Amino acid sequence: MPASAPTLAELQLRLVEFAAARGWGPYHTPKNLAVALSVEAAELVEIFQWLTPEQSERIMEDPESAHRVADEAADVLAYLLQFCQVLGVDPLRALAAKIERNETRFPVPAEGPAPPE
Amino acid sequence: MPASAPTLAELQLRLVEFAAARGWGPYHTPKNLAVALSVEAAELVEIFQWLTPEQSERIMEDPESAHRVADEAADVLAYLLQFCQVLGVDPLRALAAKIERNETRFPVPAEGPAPPE
Amino acid sequence: MPASAPTLAELQLRLVEFAAARGWGPYHTPKNLAVALSVEAAELVEIFQWLTPEQSERIMEDPESAHRVADEAADVLAYLLQFCQVLGVDPLRALAAKIERNETRFPVPAEGPAPPE
Amino acid sequence: MPASAPTLAELQLRLVEFAAARGWGPYHTPKNLAVALSVEAAELVEIFQWLTPEQSERIMEDPESAHRVADEAADVLAYLLQFCQVLGVDPLRALAAKIERNETRFPVPAEGPAPPE
Repeated sequence: MPASAPTLAELQLRLVEFAAARGWGPYHTPKNLAVALSVEAAELVEIFQWLTPEQSERIMEDPESAHRVADEAADVLAYLLQFCQVLGVDPLRALAAKIERNETRFPVPAEGPAPPE
Repeated sequence: MPASAPTLAELQLRLVEFAAARGWGPYHTPKNLAVALSVEAAELVEIFQWLTPEQSERIMEDPESAHRVADEAADVLAYLLQFCQVLGVDPLRALAAKIERNETRFPVPAEGPAPPE
Repeated sequence: MPASAPTLAELQLRLVEFAAARGWGPYHTPKNLAVALSVEAAELVEIFQWLTPEQSERIMEDPESAHRVADEAADVLAYLLQFCQVLGVDPLRALAAKIERNETRFPVPAEGPAPPE
Repeated sequence: MPASAPTLAELQLRLVEFAAARGWGPYHTPKNLAVALSVEAAELVEIFQWLTPEQSERIMEDPESAHRVADEAADVLAYLLQFCQVLGVDPLRALAAKIERNETRFPVPAEGPAPPE
């Protein structure tokens, strides 16, 4: 029986404890964590950089690429949670607020799709 | 009484419905979503680019900067969730697996802090 | 008769004088300039993020997009030159050395194209 | 006697021939080259991500870091030149025009330094 998935709050706490146990606090300024997040995002992008849109849709068919994708996505989330933690931002509430604003900014079009912003 | 915070899964579903209602599916290839995630990460970094480490620690004291930080963090999370959704990656399980691997890779040092990887 | 194009070295000098006249030296640490370069690269990417490969080939047909592309490419080059200047890196010699290494690393294939690294 | 440094135009031509000989043309869409440029910019940033501003000033004192810095700066320039080449943008003229616009946008302040834009 698979273990139930951890919650975001549980993972955030584990990341905080992980960094504290290793004395990484002084390195984890908001600026450095934002920069590290952008570096991890680029590592995720790198997987796709020479792929056609169609090839990118099939990336999970190759087990090694699938593992790499999940691993880099995890790194992005890890730095996002640590960034939010040091600044006291609640990422779930921030996203809920953003979705509400976007529902006003981008009303459902009456006559078919338009590209994203 | 404040509403309870939404869960990650609820927000992910809202993002999927939001994009579907606007016909954005064809734009939301894995490659484009990874690229959009990296663009949003850079917008978060931009807030900090000329700040000293100390100034970056105080970013939330200015209400306008605080709002911008939360807004860009929300954008990063939004694209990360949409990326994970189109590829069938569970971001919480991926992060839990990553933390476990890192606990092996980076044992707690016996003699004081070393910089992160 | 159009003026002859400036050289890279002339532009680098103008950028140095521009920043010095505005007292930007203390902001222009190597770290900050590398970060600013990555932010400008993301602004260039943003122009293309929802385009198909074919649409991206035709970006210069729209005068407004063409201007934006040239402008963001200029920003990338500006920060790259300032970064190289503060660290004493000669970007032309560094690139020449890199091309020579790559000619060894990626020999011309005998039997047709393979994707880039 | 050291060889005279190559010009930007000479290096751009060598990059074009290098890619053509390897059949990389189909991969080198403007979108992919912009994305590759941003990935290389992130690799440059990664060198600095946990450094203090002061440590970043001394990065060239360590020969291995100095080599890595020059190498990543070369990669950024390589993709920028290839991007400009496929779109017919002259990077030197674009930068000259940008500097002229910035001289108007950011007049030299009468009373001391203000942070960059």
